Amino acid sequence: MLSFTVTHKTSDCSARCGRLETPHGTVETPAFMPVGTRGTVKGILPRQLRDAGAQMILANTYHLLLRPGPEVVGELGGLHRFMGWDGPVLTDSGGYQVFSLSSLRRVGDDNVEFASHIDGTKIKLNPVIATEVQNRLGADIIMAFDECVALPCETERMAQAVERTIRWAEQSRETHARLGENDRWMFGIVQGGTDPELRRYCCEKLIELDFPGYAIGGLSVGESHREMIETTALTAPLLPDEKPRYLMGVGMPRDLVAAIGAGVDMFDCVLPTRNARHASVFTRQGTLKLRNEKYKLQTGPLDETCNCYTCRNFSRGYLRHLFMVDNRNPELLGPILLSLHNLTFYQYLMAQARLAIRENNYENWACQWADYK
Amino acid sequence: MLSFTVTHKTSDCSARCGRLETPHGTVETPAFMPVGTRGTVKGILPRQLRDAGAQMILANTYHLLLRPGPEVVGELGGLHRFMGWDGPVLTDSGGYQVFSLSSLRRVGDDNVEFASHIDGTKIKLNPVIATEVQNRLGADIIMAFDECVALPCETERMAQAVERTIRWAEQSRETHARLGENDRWMFGIVQGGTDPELRRYCCEKLIELDFPGYAIGGLSVGESHREMIETTALTAPLLPDEKPRYLMGVGMPRDLVAAIGAGVDMFDCVLPTRNARHASVFTRQGTLKLRNEKYKLQTGPLDETCNCYTCRNFSRGYLRHLFMVDNRNPELLGPILLSLHNLTFYQYLMAQARLAIRENNYENWACQWADYK
Repeated sequence: MLSFTVTHKTSDCSARCGRLETPHGTVETPAFMPVGTRGTVKGILPRQLRDAGAQMILANTYHLLLRPGPEVVGELGGLHRFMGWDGPVLTDSGGYQVFSLSSLRRVGDDNVEFASHIDGTKIKLNPVIATEVQNRLGADIIMAFDECVALPCETERMAQAVERTIRWAEQSRETHARLGENDRWMFGIVQGGTDPELRRYCCEKLIELDFPGYAIGGLSVGESHREMIETTALTAPLLPDEKPRYLMGVGMPRDLVAAIGAGVDMFDCVLPTRNARHASVFTRQGTLKLRNEKYKLQTGPLDETCNCYTCRNFSRGYLRHLFMVDNRNPELLGPILLSLHNLTFYQYLMAQARLAIRENNYENWACQWADYK
Repeated sequence: MLSFTVTHKTSDCSARCGRLETPHGTVETPAFMPVGTRGTVKGILPRQLRDAGAQMILANTYHLLLRPGPEVVGELGGLHRFMGWDGPVLTDSGGYQVFSLSSLRRVGDDNVEFASHIDGTKIKLNPVIATEVQNRLGADIIMAFDECVALPCETERMAQAVERTIRWAEQSRETHARLGENDRWMFGIVQGGTDPELRRYCCEKLIELDFPGYAIGGLSVGESHREMIETTALTAPLLPDEKPRYLMGVGMPRDLVAAIGAGVDMFDCVLPTRNARHASVFTRQGTLKLRNEKYKLQTGPLDETCNCYTCRNFSRGYLRHLFMVDNRNPELLGPILLSLHNLTFYQYLMAQARLAIRENNYENWACQWADYK
């Protein structure tokens, strides 16, 4: 029921357009997935996600495992019905959040034990559990359980994480195969930090497992923009050309543009919505901090060339007011309207990238984003 | 540019239907105005207000006076443009909030001095300033400045507040006339607590001032439901039959239903949105507290017979999850989706009331709401 087809390769770099077919609809790639951490993209209704141009969204297994729990999501009809989103959904494996959010964790070769960041409840995760939970949640694409370590990291520790990630990938794949869910793809996740040899080794081993798609994980965890891009540019071409490539948790517009140039097809990131909640706006001319006094009386929209609901209806001055009226407790419409705009901006960026690829003009188009701040 | 016409009087009680024409559109009465305290109905986009059936909204002069200030609202095009709401708007006079929210206030016969509840800034209000500020904000209907005192209250103190309210009404009216804003109506506000004589006296004096509409103020400030309804039923018929009557800040569905039966045409109240933020839902069968464990696995909508976006797309279990996932910090979609529903419910209530009036069946229809909890 799922398929991926590369529909166009640009002649000037490794960027490509593709089409991902899922039981819940088609995704034109390169694609950006808004993040619906706890079963909702914060403040945004599903129909507003559609209006913003979103094709597919991501939900976090770790968060949904803690609350409300996969049984509840299952009882309420699975993730799509639960969230009121009938388009494609991807869930991560929970690995990243276990390592970044939970406390008191104990990582062994077979299990991760951790305490919920909400109430301290002790929870165990391993490839079998993570895969079963994700199948219960019911996304279209699920991820193998991996070990994600923060950077910088010593080579020996990173090598250990890569070995675990490979072993866990095999166990995840076996579990998924046993469950026989053919309407759901599982992707493998490449780890290895910024170490070229470990990345290469991890790719080789995961390719032997023949996943239908691969993610590049373990980036945006402390390394520089340049290291991130170099690692992506090194890793992407090691992955099968005919399968989708997904760069996890990245990032700023210039990161996405560079990664697309290296042959990446899919992205997710909290930046458009998280920045919106902090009054930070993406525009064609760069980001703007809306709390700045200079926007107080500006009657124009956030971005003159944007056609989103926010830009069609509200002035910079009004949007600033929504935040300034109470710094600790902005009016809800502030984060909502800025999230709508920022998500629309990210989808615009993807649409422009796809256009540039089809016109064999990607490198040229990408230049303008290199210095975007 | 404004007019009010009583279009139908029910034969079985004092309830009536009317049509209020404003420069920003028509309002069918009885009408309920959602409250956009600080220039936004919390969490709700203007187009969602329309979808919910709202015809007219209220904004609070006190809050907008503090932030962003009437000059900023004026520079940004006036309230309608500012909020992105092109329908009718009413502003209160600021009196109620000065007495309920601010600290260090000093009430004299000519002025009220108070300290902003945000940052302690000392601010003065009086009938001239309140009227000038409201004209600058630019609503379709503005209110005379009044003194609103909490109940219970001694007769002498209440009589003093009534005298001030009458004098201030005259000064407000003169100021508004001087400004010559014919596209904007000013309503007088009747005070007098639960004292029939003071209410009668206040009505008489205000009617001499010939306002185009009258509000019943000073209720829902500490008295019982019965006292509130008795005072409303006593006051409404003292006001001119051909002019709109507006009961300020009230209330629960049964309050509205009873007040309509007494001849009231307009309402505003924060209950539908405030309760929504506390996971409390209005349904045809009564209110429900969504945090209750029993809703955890319920796949049905909040209200089977409701056609709002929330009820069409989301289960009770999911909506509960949005609140339970973090008690102190619910997912934004929780308050948003419940506000959409509760606002739709209040508009449904008004539409049903108008229908019952036109069918001369109001008393009978109203019975079902007498015990609504």
